[in-house]
Amino acid sequence: MAASFQSLADFRSLLADLPVSDQSAQIAATERNMQLTKPPGALGRLEDLAIWYAGWRGQAAPKIKSPQVVIFAGNHGITAQGVSAFPAEVTAQMVGNFQAGGAAINQLSGCFGAAMTVHALDLDRPTGDFTQTAAMTEAEVVAALSVGWDSVDGNADLLVTGEMGIGNTTSAAAIANALFGGKAREWVGRGTGVSDEGLALKADVVGRGLARHAAVLDDPLEILRCLGGRELAAMAGAVARARMLRIPVIMDGFIATAALSVLERCQAGALDHCVAGHISAEAGHGRLLDALGKAPLLSLGMRLGEGSGAALAIAVMQAALACHSGMATFAEAGVSDG
Amino acid sequence: MAASFQSLADFRSLLADLPVSDQSAQIAATERNMQLTKPPGALGRLEDLAIWYAGWRGQAAPKIKSPQVVIFAGNHGITAQGVSAFPAEVTAQMVGNFQAGGAAINQLSGCFGAAMTVHALDLDRPTGDFTQTAAMTEAEVVAALSVGWDSVDGNADLLVTGEMGIGNTTSAAAIANALFGGKAREWVGRGTGVSDEGLALKADVVGRGLARHAAVLDDPLEILRCLGGRELAAMAGAVARARMLRIPVIMDGFIATAALSVLERCQAGALDHCVAGHISAEAGHGRLLDALGKAPLLSLGMRLGEGSGAALAIAVMQAALACHSGMATFAEAGVSDG
Repeated sequence: MAASFQSLADFRSLLADLPVSDQSAQIAATERNMQLTKPPGALGRLEDLAIWYAGWRGQAAPKIKSPQVVIFAGNHGITAQGVSAFPAEVTAQMVGNFQAGGAAINQLSGCFGAAMTVHALDLDRPTGDFTQTAAMTEAEVVAALSVGWDSVDGNADLLVTGEMGIGNTTSAAAIANALFGGKAREWVGRGTGVSDEGLALKADVVGRGLARHAAVLDDPLEILRCLGGRELAAMAGAVARARMLRIPVIMDGFIATAALSVLERCQAGALDHCVAGHISAEAGHGRLLDALGKAPLLSLGMRLGEGSGAALAIAVMQAALACHSGMATFAEAGVSDG
Repeated sequence: MAASFQSLADFRSLLADLPVSDQSAQIAATERNMQLTKPPGALGRLEDLAIWYAGWRGQAAPKIKSPQVVIFAGNHGITAQGVSAFPAEVTAQMVGNFQAGGAAINQLSGCFGAAMTVHALDLDRPTGDFTQTAAMTEAEVVAALSVGWDSVDGNADLLVTGEMGIGNTTSAAAIANALFGGKAREWVGRGTGVSDEGLALKADVVGRGLARHAAVLDDPLEILRCLGGRELAAMAGAVARARMLRIPVIMDGFIATAALSVLERCQAGALDHCVAGHISAEAGHGRLLDALGKAPLLSLGMRLGEGSGAALAIAVMQAALACHSGMATFAEAGVSDG
């Protein structure tokens, strides 16, 4: 389905009218959970996840059969400021690696049966350097949102969005800072591995970006346009589309979470269909999850991006629904319920 | 292979001569890890897990193809003291549920391709009430260790041991307290769901058990015999056998960890081939993991037993090895390495 928006104003209108979780399915799932052959609450967060997922899918006992991982790649004008430990050509090289099956996300998608697609967004046209100009024009950010929107498979039953883009932790830090306030140095991290000096430079670059675009910082979609990147906008577009299709989403690390936060700041509750897959080692991620009120499923010190942490959390979701929908009840199994 | 021990003294001798990790495979895996298409360290704990696993398997780039989950069930004389929220018949009923495929562990094993077997150990002969007598005779504990030893499939490449036994959190708390000291109330938890009063009773029962068997508390295998259960001994036997076969093990929750701690206290390093799958909500588990110096992979508030938390962590191990052994190197992918 081609994106049903032509402008940021159209996209904003879509966010103002989002479908919500099916309460009757949630209630039915909660009742089922209480009858399963285990002490009450003994599966911990798996139980909450199953009930939450059931609500979004509108079924009392769904399973996860068709997870989708979609990866977006973009290049960033901000790399001109020297904010990354890797050269910008690596974005295109890694897209080749994704297409050839050699990256971490290929292996993780394969492990858990997820269909994976990769979308390279105008890699030969980096965004503008946001310390000097807006990262994107309205047409460019709408086009990127649309790539994301159109990438979602309507038959998917779980979505992970991932990214690749040399320089994009700086863009994500700028967005997070613009959306949630605080100091630039609280939002920047080491990305692919910058030094202490590089970290200070990133904070300076973020500060200059926010100063340059001070006039638009009260509008989350303008923040995305002026400070973002194409792959960040595409992730936001995909997650908005997933909401329309009632496909639950596992959020990845700092960059994905920053991009998706734009939706939540536009419309409170816009990320209610999203769970935090993990907490990454990138410095600002915990702060971002706290701001969103999302508790991560995994904490394994990952900081790769590519959707990798979220892809690993597919296993947790699959396990939660396999237990919820596959276990016998006390009555079925002839087990005394205490 | 039938167990190669006839007495606790034989078993003790086996523990004194355990195979160790293959250093050259670890070094080769470490070198491979540095060449993979990701920033150094970006996969966090997955990288350490892969190298650790490679060492035990003696291969630079192994994968996990044949995980095994083995569940042991036993009944406990200590239930006469009223320490569980569920009646003792539930042990046999749950064994039926495991055999019929209706329990959580069946779903989790299925999710991650693990072969699962269940061993019911003399359910019609509960162990002795350890406040009154030894839980097992030497012949009984050796038989239970042997069931575990013999249960391990030599073709497995990852092992999870789980348990079912009404009353066994009390047995586990007694073992943990005997092995690591401290107060009984620091080791008891709510198990399947006892009240505050039940919790105080469990602490009292543990205290009386330790007092009753004070003379043998300097010998971990005697602690297992006097305070343990058949399913706990079987888990220890299985994990010892896995060590002989260089099969890495994922430890489950409080009960499994308490049982396996007997091996470590017998012979320092006996659990070097084991990783902590998760931290359970059972009160004493964190303390036990701290005592062993093991950091859990997952923290999802699970407290079911049955090997369930460890079975979920199979996914983490599979992901770690899939990335390690499946990813392209910088040279293979033509990606600049920063």
